[in-house]
Amino acid sequence: MLSLGKQRGKVVTVETSEQVTLKILQDKATRLRMDSVLSTTEAGSGHPTSCASAAEIVSVLFYSVMRYDPCDPHRPDSDVFVLSKGHAAPILYAAWAEAGAFPRERLLTLRKIDSDLEGHPTTRLPFVDVATGSLGQGLSVGVGIALHAKQFDHSGQRVFVLMGDGESAEGSVWEAAQWAALRNLNNLCAIIDINRLGQSQPTMLQWDLDVYKARWEAFGWQALLVDGHSIPDLIAAFETAAQVSDRPTIVLARTLKGKGLIGIEGLEHWHGKALDKPTAAKVVAELESQLTGASHQWKPNLPTAGRSISQTKTTDRATSGGKPPYALGGKEVATRKGFADSLAALANANPRIVVLDGDVKNSTYTEEFEKVAPHRFLEGYIAEQNIIGMAMGLAARGKVPFASLFSCFVTRAYDFIRLAAISHLNIKIVGTHCGVSIGEDGPTQMGLEDLAMSCAEPDFTVLYPADATSAWKATALIAEHTGPCYLRIGRPNSPILYGPDEQFAIGKCKVLKQSGRDKALVVAAGITVFEALTAYDQLQKEGISVRIIDLFSVQPLDRDELIASARAAGGIVITVEDHYAHGGLGDAVLSALAEARVRAYKLAVREIPHSGKPEQLIEKFGISSGHIVNAVKSALG
Amino acid sequence: MLSLGKQRGKVVTVETSEQVTLKILQDKATRLRMDSVLSTTEAGSGHPTSCASAAEIVSVLFYSVMRYDPCDPHRPDSDVFVLSKGHAAPILYAAWAEAGAFPRERLLTLRKIDSDLEGHPTTRLPFVDVATGSLGQGLSVGVGIALHAKQFDHSGQRVFVLMGDGESAEGSVWEAAQWAALRNLNNLCAIIDINRLGQSQPTMLQWDLDVYKARWEAFGWQALLVDGHSIPDLIAAFETAAQVSDRPTIVLARTLKGKGLIGIEGLEHWHGKALDKPTAAKVVAELESQLTGASHQWKPNLPTAGRSISQTKTTDRATSGGKPPYALGGKEVATRKGFADSLAALANANPRIVVLDGDVKNSTYTEEFEKVAPHRFLEGYIAEQNIIGMAMGLAARGKVPFASLFSCFVTRAYDFIRLAAISHLNIKIVGTHCGVSIGEDGPTQMGLEDLAMSCAEPDFTVLYPADATSAWKATALIAEHTGPCYLRIGRPNSPILYGPDEQFAIGKCKVLKQSGRDKALVVAAGITVFEALTAYDQLQKEGISVRIIDLFSVQPLDRDELIASARAAGGIVITVEDHYAHGGLGDAVLSALAEARVRAYKLAVREIPHSGKPEQLIEKFGISSGHIVNAVKSALG
Repeated sequence: MLSLGKQRGKVVTVETSEQVTLKILQDKATRLRMDSVLSTTEAGSGHPTSCASAAEIVSVLFYSVMRYDPCDPHRPDSDVFVLSKGHAAPILYAAWAEAGAFPRERLLTLRKIDSDLEGHPTTRLPFVDVATGSLGQGLSVGVGIALHAKQFDHSGQRVFVLMGDGESAEGSVWEAAQWAALRNLNNLCAIIDINRLGQSQPTMLQWDLDVYKARWEAFGWQALLVDGHSIPDLIAAFETAAQVSDRPTIVLARTLKGKGLIGIEGLEHWHGKALDKPTAAKVVAELESQLTGASHQWKPNLPTAGRSISQTKTTDRATSGGKPPYALGGKEVATRKGFADSLAALANANPRIVVLDGDVKNSTYTEEFEKVAPHRFLEGYIAEQNIIGMAMGLAARGKVPFASLFSCFVTRAYDFIRLAAISHLNIKIVGTHCGVSIGEDGPTQMGLEDLAMSCAEPDFTVLYPADATSAWKATALIAEHTGPCYLRIGRPNSPILYGPDEQFAIGKCKVLKQSGRDKALVVAAGITVFEALTAYDQLQKEGISVRIIDLFSVQPLDRDELIASARAAGGIVITVEDHYAHGGLGDAVLSALAEARVRAYKLAVREIPHSGKPEQLIEKFGISSGHIVNAVKSALG
Repeated sequence: MLSLGKQRGKVVTVETSEQVTLKILQDKATRLRMDSVLSTTEAGSGHPTSCASAAEIVSVLFYSVMRYDPCDPHRPDSDVFVLSKGHAAPILYAAWAEAGAFPRERLLTLRKIDSDLEGHPTTRLPFVDVATGSLGQGLSVGVGIALHAKQFDHSGQRVFVLMGDGESAEGSVWEAAQWAALRNLNNLCAIIDINRLGQSQPTMLQWDLDVYKARWEAFGWQALLVDGHSIPDLIAAFETAAQVSDRPTIVLARTLKGKGLIGIEGLEHWHGKALDKPTAAKVVAELESQLTGASHQWKPNLPTAGRSISQTKTTDRATSGGKPPYALGGKEVATRKGFADSLAALANANPRIVVLDGDVKNSTYTEEFEKVAPHRFLEGYIAEQNIIGMAMGLAARGKVPFASLFSCFVTRAYDFIRLAAISHLNIKIVGTHCGVSIGEDGPTQMGLEDLAMSCAEPDFTVLYPADATSAWKATALIAEHTGPCYLRIGRPNSPILYGPDEQFAIGKCKVLKQSGRDKALVVAAGITVFEALTAYDQLQKEGISVRIIDLFSVQPLDRDELIASARAAGGIVITVEDHYAHGGLGDAVLSALAEARVRAYKLAVREIPHSGKPEQLIEKFGISSGHIVNAVKSALG
């Protein structure tokens, strides 16, 4: 291991307190550079030059501007720092170590398998709200946290998001920008480290700071241009940011990639490269020679006691929203209605629930929640990435965000969902209007890959209710469950299958039909449950008994029951789903039965569908009762 | 069926040609409104009010501004119209019918299962380049087509993209905007139909046209404010757009939702609702009373013969890029190198290949292609949605676009990929750095759901080569194959498995080890092939023979060979993959073997991974040779 180097113990004499502060902050910046180089060189990989350009920014934020408790970074009154440019992880770790959060020696475990100091920040660390490393996500997360502080906690908490310059080409950044301005989030301050160089070449805008400024101002932000290596400039900018009352602030910091790393500063082709040990030693020696020793005078700037907090305790559990109001055998109701009624009923029972929607609240029916709890309903407009990103920020701060979208458009936010999974966040994504059964709107509006995407993420709970009652119960279950969840919901009205007292659980299915003479097992979910029941009647007439399961919980699934039922039904299994053939419930069932030597037949949508009436499409694309009957008969030979 | 109504046969007398033109265009706009109402009322669903706000815009474009051949809309010298606000499909269909592309009566088949006039436009129609209906995608597609015209065809073709106002909240719009400005696409003109009302409520910016203008100008566009119902204003704006030489133009058209539909104009809660028949009859009668009869004087504005075209014939097939240069048993090479070398070798052989990359060309190695064919290399910067969207536009116009990204960030563009699949486009997406085997960068940088997402899309060909030679061949195969393809590529160096003359095919696997005594079948791909081969050696030492398959083609897969091999190996199958457990190659194999009553064991990554060395991670997350050996032994009991 490399040694961490020692600071020179100069004696500070007659200086103003301002001069001392500057010296402290410059020393801190230098130490952050040293640690970024040393840790990446020890790891043999990483992004030291992307850290070096941000050293003064991070120093000023962590050791002058932000009020926080290094030993309790998640205190609701602590200011929040989000490192959106996650590849600069080494300087984030160095900053917290320097603040006293953990021993500096641990920095040398960077990127090792037994260390929490991963290549990009993850929530294994207490000071990371949400994993970063996919560029363009941090601002949405910061918006969610800033909104939480301003609208729900009413705290004086401020949120700082450090972005890279290449990153601002991501459209999601502009989704977040417009929303933050719309909601006047003056407690949000973002900084762009404009070091001009991307991974492979100069960025689109390079150092054209005027263009940056015009764009951010047009998006409703206060934009401040600074020399990102000037500590006084940075301090002044953050003071200006703190004064503004009606809008967020962007600090556009012109910097040099690799700043302070002798021989590397400002050069291309140094992205994501650790220095070899001799080079690192030279660079660190040079940096060390600049130290004044002032930095040991720094003390944490703890949150003031005066910061009011009205946070809902994160230990609050949802209490019941009551019973679903739909009568067995009564009029048909859509599962989206069951979901939305349940959510509205939970609004008062669980004050942690916040609902976000993408201009479809009159189709997802989340407008029912808005009526009950308008303050906790957030219209996200047509910007799905930011909706999920804000939900991630809200979840990181103890809320239970439900983000409802058409299931086809959930695909838009898949990269965010991926990071929500990595971060083990307590978000609830609801995808409505799934499958060909939406009918006339046509293939572009049909969610047919949402089970593939959601079930692929480990730890995601995925429920897919068949009727309004089970949709109601599923909504309550995921509100109660801690962890990321996806709820798949349909568009059409369907009969009520379950009485209001029926019990549902994550990981449990419902056996709807069974006998001692079952010749096959049919596993369905959502609208195909009704097709399966129709097929059951038809087959009964022909003297063939089949077992019917409403899967309900696609992930985790009820493996024991599936295996037992498959065996009881002669080892012949038919799955049927309003989803594409790969990655849907059929694959989940096949996987659960993989060791059971069953014979399985998967009915699913196998081609690009078409506009038409739901019942026509269910027939045309192979998932109707008729197809189930044929599959059973064909399997029985 | 409703009747389509008849135009009043007024006689035009002493008018200037300009007056006549205005009358024609106003009549056309009125007829477009009538047809939009009639077709949606007949269908019982659809978005007549979203059509009505755009009637003058569409009329002016189709009957005054655009030069095109209604009977051959895909002529390379025809101007191009992209309806990004796909829910206004009825007016698109009405416009083409009115231009003579098909009989007007067919409009009444809107949204029916046997009609190509679907709820949102799809490529089943000859005048649709790319399906739309997921908002915010059309501009990227338009950028791709405009670039194609300007940079590759050198045609005078102009591209018009009609967007909705709610849609401009999508970040992807701003990704497209910045790129179009960067490349000075003055042949691109977008129009925003600013009718103030989204689906569920007013849009974020409502009629704040000055903010729109500031944003688009800041993003480098010429921005023109117009009354979107004033035909002279619109004509003037499109003339101004045609004059600009250095930037694209955005026409910001203030409109009324439902304009011209008596009793509905400008009202909320009329999004996506067809009028009932009595209301429609009243509205249409009122519209009909406004007709002057001038519209029959219109004649198509055909493309001028003078438009030069230097388009590569779309029938050109790739010729070979030669043989892969890697020696069996020679030094280790990464599959990404195999891909990129092959692509560079194909550059001259196939002039239709265009490569797009997202600031990772020095990691995906597509910089090798750039060296050979810089004119056909497009740096997309960190904006994955726009990269895929531009590729879609290029593919629609006959290019063979390869878009290379880190596989984890392909998730960013999933909604675009979904529409590329619906559109059956000939795009090639290459996801590099897949799986835990990337090592130290950590979980946020690991693509572990890319097989789930790509295989879910019907008709997507998905290849996953194990060594540089097969990566080379896979690249040539997908360049040659017509249709959407995904190529999964790893980061680490690996041994060369195949000689330069080895033949590969889409849908075919490689049986690497087999004997008459095989007790189990191991199916692997990518880096796990090497783990499987190591396991083979270990098991051989213990007297256990296993069959080893390199799957190579995940979709379609070699079902016959898999079934035969599984049977020959006692019906015991172990799959092993550097991908999450759901939706990966294991599920693809299980699905292929579903009816074969095998016993299968799926080794895959089952939790959120960690930073570490590749070999440590392969071990820790359960996909190493040791895990394969254990799985085989455990299966054999």
